[in-house]
Amino acid sequence: MSEQQRLSRGKAIVLLSGGLDSATVLAMATDQGYECHCLSFDYGQRHRTEIEFAAGLAAQFSATEHRTIKIDLRAFGGSALTDDGLEVPVDGIEAGVPITYVPARNTIFLSYALGYAEVLPAHHIFIGVNAVDYSGYPDCRPEFVSAFEALANTATRIGTEGERIRIETPLIDLKKEEIILRGAALGVDYSKTVSCYQLTEAGTSCGVCDSCRIRKAGFAQAGMEDPTCY
Amino acid sequence: MSEQQRLSRGKAIVLLSGGLDSATVLAMATDQGYECHCLSFDYGQRHRTEIEFAAGLAAQFSATEHRTIKIDLRAFGGSALTDDGLEVPVDGIEAGVPITYVPARNTIFLSYALGYAEVLPAHHIFIGVNAVDYSGYPDCRPEFVSAFEALANTATRIGTEGERIRIETPLIDLKKEEIILRGAALGVDYSKTVSCYQLTEAGTSCGVCDSCRIRKAGFAQAGMEDPTCY
Repeated sequence: MSEQQRLSRGKAIVLLSGGLDSATVLAMATDQGYECHCLSFDYGQRHRTEIEFAAGLAAQFSATEHRTIKIDLRAFGGSALTDDGLEVPVDGIEAGVPITYVPARNTIFLSYALGYAEVLPAHHIFIGVNAVDYSGYPDCRPEFVSAFEALANTATRIGTEGERIRIETPLIDLKKEEIILRGAALGVDYSKTVSCYQLTEAGTSCGVCDSCRIRKAGFAQAGMEDPTCY
Repeated sequence: MSEQQRLSRGKAIVLLSGGLDSATVLAMATDQGYECHCLSFDYGQRHRTEIEFAAGLAAQFSATEHRTIKIDLRAFGGSALTDDGLEVPVDGIEAGVPITYVPARNTIFLSYALGYAEVLPAHHIFIGVNAVDYSGYPDCRPEFVSAFEALANTATRIGTEGERIRIETPLIDLKKEEIILRGAALGVDYSKTVSCYQLTEAGTSCGVCDSCRIRKAGFAQAGMEDPTCY
């Protein structure tokens, strides 16, 4: 694809966590011809490897820009991912909203993306939410995405001046194995993504948290070797 | 009001900026019997006096808690309040969305409040938006508030488990002079609030930015002396 074609779809904000899903989203948005402005968050998560991986992915896919915003989700805690007093469950996936759910996290992430979209301006915000293997988080469902898109178009100057902001969720209906197969076809190196909720200092994944379990099962279903270091 | 009555309305998050409007909102929520958990943001605004005033107001109204979250709105700029390259207009209020509009600011503030509400839990979030003297900001309109409330109830565990989160906007239909008169009746000391967009180091307000103009006119219409140091 020529540089001219690549830029023809306009600017997009891509929320990039360094995980498997958002890496695939970046590959898809790039392939679709968007000029990608990637946004990552340093929010006091338990490990920082994902932020380094995000930077690597942005570079690999020649993103126009990659910004990391430091935010404080530990200020109110309430999740095993942001509160040292809470343990990450390792005994298998249970029904209901798990303790790894970070209250309002996707709402907060999308809100920053919205501010960034308003400034650029960009009319597309990509987020790797997925309604199939979504761990029971309320802010990964299609209803949430629709509600945020409606909000985005009343909250901003560009949304209220006749243009539309779209929340793009290319993974929403895909199974984990489908995500992996699509990403692999687009050149994502999944050894450079991280899913584990409790990565060790040495960079090895636990293999038993919900996120590791979903990732492992996805590679198995895809019939691909899982390059993760467990 | 007895302590028991005071707590009978349950917990509320109150967004508290240290300005005239949010000070009045805190007084109203306290008067209505909510247990107020105040939330302020240190977002790289041009002056920090408002954060100190917010702490003073929370103490004066015996708020249960006051948290200040440091966030980075300068990461994408785009407003005269968060971007040193942009000047605050001082020649009077013009039509349209002004350069002092901070992209997605209220969306970001409410998103944090939502996370905090989820953790407590609290079912009420108070914000001092006002559709009359609102400076033309898209995220101060009733449509915005309704859209955020809809979002809040799809984004969270408490909103999706049969309970409702409400975005409370007691100032939405009030003129500035009505806000001032209500607050004064509830004991708000407006000399301990700040409105100016470009407060000096010495703590004097410029008197000519849009926010100063709206404040001055409000006191004049209320027939009250403006305690602001211009």
